[in-house]
Amino acid sequence: MKFGGTSVADLDRIANAAEKIQAEVKRGYNVIVIVSAMSGKTNELVGWVNKTSDFYDAREYDAVVSSGENVTAGLMSLRLQEMGVSARSWQGWQVPINTTAAHGAARFVSIPRANLDAKFDEGFRVAVVAGFQGVSPEGRITTLGRGGSDTTAVAFAAAFDAERCDIYTDVDGVYTTDPRITSKARKLDKISYEEMLELASLGAKVLQTRSVELAMRYNVRLRVLSSFGDTDQNSGTLVCDEEEIMESKVVSGIAFSRDEAKITLVTVDDRPGIAAAIFGPLAEAGVNVDMIVQNISEKDHDEAHSGAVTDMTFSCPVDQIGRARKAMEEAKGAGSINYDELVVDTDVSKVSVVGIGMRSHAGVAAKMFKSLANEGVNIKVISTSEIKISVLIDRKYIELAVQTLHDTFDLGETSEAS
Amino acid sequence: MKFGGTSVADLDRIANAAEKIQAEVKRGYNVIVIVSAMSGKTNELVGWVNKTSDFYDAREYDAVVSSGENVTAGLMSLRLQEMGVSARSWQGWQVPINTTAAHGAARFVSIPRANLDAKFDEGFRVAVVAGFQGVSPEGRITTLGRGGSDTTAVAFAAAFDAERCDIYTDVDGVYTTDPRITSKARKLDKISYEEMLELASLGAKVLQTRSVELAMRYNVRLRVLSSFGDTDQNSGTLVCDEEEIMESKVVSGIAFSRDEAKITLVTVDDRPGIAAAIFGPLAEAGVNVDMIVQNISEKDHDEAHSGAVTDMTFSCPVDQIGRARKAMEEAKGAGSINYDELVVDTDVSKVSVVGIGMRSHAGVAAKMFKSLANEGVNIKVISTSEIKISVLIDRKYIELAVQTLHDTFDLGETSEAS
Repeated sequence: MKFGGTSVADLDRIANAAEKIQAEVKRGYNVIVIVSAMSGKTNELVGWVNKTSDFYDAREYDAVVSSGENVTAGLMSLRLQEMGVSARSWQGWQVPINTTAAHGAARFVSIPRANLDAKFDEGFRVAVVAGFQGVSPEGRITTLGRGGSDTTAVAFAAAFDAERCDIYTDVDGVYTTDPRITSKARKLDKISYEEMLELASLGAKVLQTRSVELAMRYNVRLRVLSSFGDTDQNSGTLVCDEEEIMESKVVSGIAFSRDEAKITLVTVDDRPGIAAAIFGPLAEAGVNVDMIVQNISEKDHDEAHSGAVTDMTFSCPVDQIGRARKAMEEAKGAGSINYDELVVDTDVSKVSVVGIGMRSHAGVAAKMFKSLANEGVNIKVISTSEIKISVLIDRKYIELAVQTLHDTFDLGETSEAS
Repeated sequence: MKFGGTSVADLDRIANAAEKIQAEVKRGYNVIVIVSAMSGKTNELVGWVNKTSDFYDAREYDAVVSSGENVTAGLMSLRLQEMGVSARSWQGWQVPINTTAAHGAARFVSIPRANLDAKFDEGFRVAVVAGFQGVSPEGRITTLGRGGSDTTAVAFAAAFDAERCDIYTDVDGVYTTDPRITSKARKLDKISYEEMLELASLGAKVLQTRSVELAMRYNVRLRVLSSFGDTDQNSGTLVCDEEEIMESKVVSGIAFSRDEAKITLVTVDDRPGIAAAIFGPLAEAGVNVDMIVQNISEKDHDEAHSGAVTDMTFSCPVDQIGRARKAMEEAKGAGSINYDELVVDTDVSKVSVVGIGMRSHAGVAAKMFKSLANEGVNIKVISTSEIKISVLIDRKYIELAVQTLHDTFDLGETSEAS
């Protein structure tokens, strides 16, 4: 069971989470609990570090920032003991959670079972583990980077062959799309790892991508559910192998990302190595390039260009557009690339349909494009993968597009098998 | 170098302390720094624990409460690095600081030098150690109880054969008496361990008794000085072996404790075991009995008492008087002791003259009593040790008594050799 920052924000919420843990113990389970820092605490610690040092030592950063989770782990254990549940806290080095020495973005090396198993054998029912942290080969404290507590939970579930890994958060599951966009959005009972990965990376902020990848690799059954209100063993959304989902719809959900931008380099020399010359500098500038489209330039092939030319279009988050433009202008200045014009469009959004059923069903793309065309929504860029189709559209159409596609693929109905 | 909570209360003060550390590094020293939690942080953590659990697991208490020192250690290391000083933080388990498993009041077992020495050999100049904590034989985090950071500093100084142990605090040294009572109070350049122990236990709150005991046992030269304002290698007060203090005065300081209370059991049976029958229940009730005086009862030896009788008087902190009275009444009710009357005086204070010179100088007590008598101060109880004479007096006379004794023993003069 993993409880994020908002689920352990204060002592009342810690007590509430403890009741959910106790319920599982009463059902007969031994439980490993992964906790985040009380919300706000990590930010306070990070603020202190940033004010103390401009170019900080990541090892000291980790030593400071990891303390928030340690506090929650101790408090949660105390609360459980108070309720008569035999529990103890575990800091990363006590387990030990062995990681690489990549401070701030460490990866798991091993999670030996011996210490926790010994305590379970003694009769302890709950091990409360500080999330987000581990210990390096040098014996220093490491942190795992964004979403580290989700990842810790999945890693423990894998190491201990857990029946489930329940991620308690502030939403009650994974939806067919954002309920703020359409009231027809429906909570999914089950979703496959692959679909969840596409939804996570497309802006549905329920689960961190890395934790879903890890769950898929080790076949950990991951359940997302709310830490507020009553929950039982069927609450939330189960993220699992597609084999477990008997009949799935062709499309499982509509994801979207509102604040995208599009850059087109007009009339680029079409020569080997041109893509590397463009996207190398962008990566170095920290620009997260998403969709890429290359097509023949609309411009005439004139005297200025002795060889073949093309237009190159890519998208990135709108707040990275300054960096992207600067990287391109510098590359042009250095002579490594050439273009006639750099056209920026900061008023675009991305909408995607996701579903493993697409693998065996043709015509999903055609149905999607026709549906958008019927509403007068112009498609600017298209990108596809095996289980996803994404398009860039004008931002003003984003709600309309999501609602239309949600209807088109019958996501609001309750006929899904579970 | 040890910095207490007020000396690392915020980022500015951490920066200020870092400058003092840098100054020692520039003088050629390798430095071990012991830090407390930023002031207020430990109280916040303790508050959370108390709100979470009534009968708390001391192991979890320690895991939570120790995190404050870890944060300071990391921030201090970062600050030092920012100033170009090669430093790293050490949590108790990383050193390791091996302690007993007596959580909340653990005692040192060993502090192996290997890990820190290896880093010093690599060229690190400063080890910043989280104070107040250690690790138990079971690998759980322990805390050392009150004054634990001072004790940590002395223990490291002993383990690493340090030239000095500098305790930075919010006063600039040890004074002949409290400067708020008399403007003639003077900072001592040096004081012996024995005198410091008497002053510490008598209410001069500069150093925790246990840290002075430890310093005396391992002959650690302990310096108390202010973390505010300029300091150099001669600032503050050096607590050291009396051999180092060439010529000392007969009396070094006047200590006092304002809020004392006195209880007299009138007409107690004077039989073997009566003291145990009285002070056993008081100890069990958590009453810190200080002075004890037994004298023949003023009452007549009447028919109600078949054997010899006595009066028994003792003192304790005024806020423990309720507990003391209850313990005595219960003992009487149970028949284990007998007395005619229980007289409580809650308006008394204790004043003490302290000095190793007393050992070789007679007449100190007489001089003290005469001086107080001249001012009309009545002495209610007297207690003496080898280097201290304490008296209980009415509280209204405490300032007068301290001022008079300070003058009587010439403590305001500057003739002390250093």
